[in-house]
Amino acid sequence: MKTVFGYQLEEFSRKVFVALGIPEEDAKVSAHILAQADLRGIDSHGVARLAIYAKRLKLGLINKYPNIKIVHEKAGGAIVDGDNGLGQVVAHKAMTLCLNKAKENGVAAVGVRNSNHFGIGAYYAMMALEEDMIGIVATNTSPLMAPFGGKDPLLGTNPIAMAVPAGEQYPVVLDMATSLVPRGKIEIYARKGEKLPLGWAIDADGRPTQDPAEALKGTLLPMGGPKGYGLSMMVDLFAGVLSGAAVGGNIGSLFGNMDRPQNVGHFMMAIDVGSFRPIDEFKAAMDEYICTVKQSTPAEGVKEIFLPGEIEFIKTKERIEQGVSLNPVVVENLLTLARELGLVGPNATADDLFD
Amino acid sequence: MKTVFGYQLEEFSRKVFVALGIPEEDAKVSAHILAQADLRGIDSHGVARLAIYAKRLKLGLINKYPNIKIVHEKAGGAIVDGDNGLGQVVAHKAMTLCLNKAKENGVAAVGVRNSNHFGIGAYYAMMALEEDMIGIVATNTSPLMAPFGGKDPLLGTNPIAMAVPAGEQYPVVLDMATSLVPRGKIEIYARKGEKLPLGWAIDADGRPTQDPAEALKGTLLPMGGPKGYGLSMMVDLFAGVLSGAAVGGNIGSLFGNMDRPQNVGHFMMAIDVGSFRPIDEFKAAMDEYICTVKQSTPAEGVKEIFLPGEIEFIKTKERIEQGVSLNPVVVENLLTLARELGLVGPNATADDLFD
Repeated sequence: MKTVFGYQLEEFSRKVFVALGIPEEDAKVSAHILAQADLRGIDSHGVARLAIYAKRLKLGLINKYPNIKIVHEKAGGAIVDGDNGLGQVVAHKAMTLCLNKAKENGVAAVGVRNSNHFGIGAYYAMMALEEDMIGIVATNTSPLMAPFGGKDPLLGTNPIAMAVPAGEQYPVVLDMATSLVPRGKIEIYARKGEKLPLGWAIDADGRPTQDPAEALKGTLLPMGGPKGYGLSMMVDLFAGVLSGAAVGGNIGSLFGNMDRPQNVGHFMMAIDVGSFRPIDEFKAAMDEYICTVKQSTPAEGVKEIFLPGEIEFIKTKERIEQGVSLNPVVVENLLTLARELGLVGPNATADDLFD
Repeated sequence: MKTVFGYQLEEFSRKVFVALGIPEEDAKVSAHILAQADLRGIDSHGVARLAIYAKRLKLGLINKYPNIKIVHEKAGGAIVDGDNGLGQVVAHKAMTLCLNKAKENGVAAVGVRNSNHFGIGAYYAMMALEEDMIGIVATNTSPLMAPFGGKDPLLGTNPIAMAVPAGEQYPVVLDMATSLVPRGKIEIYARKGEKLPLGWAIDADGRPTQDPAEALKGTLLPMGGPKGYGLSMMVDLFAGVLSGAAVGGNIGSLFGNMDRPQNVGHFMMAIDVGSFRPIDEFKAAMDEYICTVKQSTPAEGVKEIFLPGEIEFIKTKERIEQGVSLNPVVVENLLTLARELGLVGPNATADDLFD
């Protein structure tokens, strides 16, 4: 395990993006978002993803110099065309627009088309916190889940993120996929040769399966059956249909479709708290709410109750102080990438990667 | 089973509300919403609820002549104080305000405090459909669910409803509680003496239980574990904390607290589709989306795939034509209520109830 600090991950990612031809400002934004994922403990969405972004950029599947523009606009809302830019760059711009509109109107919504995988949704939802606003962000993703009762993969894991500011306490931040588990979790079971719990996935015929190999040929199951199915579809209708992005089975896969852009859609909302309730009153009520839940009685065998997002805040604090332990496979991939881009010499080792 | 048509249920409910002292216009609105629940097949939230509303009205726990007013306002949002009026009356007014604001701004949000149980959330979300808008409605409810890992009932089943317009196809309408199952379902298992599936509820010590009697002493479990917990809390933060209504364990129970108002909070949003994408283009895309899902391959043993809300649309069509079969216990309760209010004579029978 190699331990690296957040600012090192960010600086390394910035250099990678710049070497790939991304303009400096966009490289900075994207690098920051990736490093934040690692700090929050969402390792799957941090620097580990640099390799696939690099691959898509080199293949010309992501536009390095996108002309990101508003295609429809009203006082409280807009549709943004991402022009196939990096998802992080596009989503960051769109959320900034959304926050500005919410400041004027009390609430705003922005839909995004022609975007790409944007990393962790929580990042954009949490942009609202700095403005004392509530942020809501959803994105559609490439198809991995069947409609309830079906077997064709027509829905993504379509995550939803929401962030609500508090006073002295950590903000409440929810970031969840609408499938019960991510596909990556089934891959881990497959590698370990372990049986899946029932309810995670179905096989290619739509039958419940506990065999990870069969599950990987089939589709994921939504959380809560028809409820998760409904939520996943709503994300697709907001981020895809309303925004005019690709939907359902047509969304390009980050890893699977190396022949075409993804055309991912996002949907973001911001609610300016002060337009609804005096902010100090709101924050005091949030703190009281959070403390009530935190201090409530744990169930038998449970040590501590956590608020949504609390574990990620604790993890971030820990990792800022102690650094992030990178998986050796990830380090190896980053080294290969850095060599390819000429950021280090051909004989460099992992120790030469981070300044 | 007594079969009654929707308009008869509506007219009966209207007379009940008027006899209870509700002003004519408010009685009409409330009666319409109750009858729509029965038509949609949500029998638990239709005329079966007249008795408890009547009881609370007679005890002075609901304000017959509420002064419903806006307490905060911005272009795209408002907080409405329901002045402890009937939930249906308050929510209908608030959603009407929300739709008007969305027409101007593209999107709008309205929070509601000092309200009561409002029946089916889908009704208010679907008000948006007539305006070619998307509607989102959530309400907090009295506590029945523990925080994830806990055992104190601090969260309600806090339902979320969303309605998205379509063209030739039925609109997509999701209306779901954030608990895996409603408490009523556990009561049914208790009456039948059947074992519960694991994952529905925990006992008073927070242990998973399959004994419905123990479950009724304990709390419901959220759908998808921490995900449903997070969603339920978000509803409470939006409908309760942001609106300034009661939250968590403090919300009065419709049936359990006959000593105080409920102070339920609602949260509603409307998105004017035409402000984001030309409405005809949107509707055509929705129809295509719906048909793709509808025509996708069913899993083994499944006959037909349904879109969210489709079953309720089919049920409504069926019940408009064939009438609603009322449960004999419900009919008996309505007869008692009608006698008490002098709507029928003391010797009237069920046959005298509906014109």
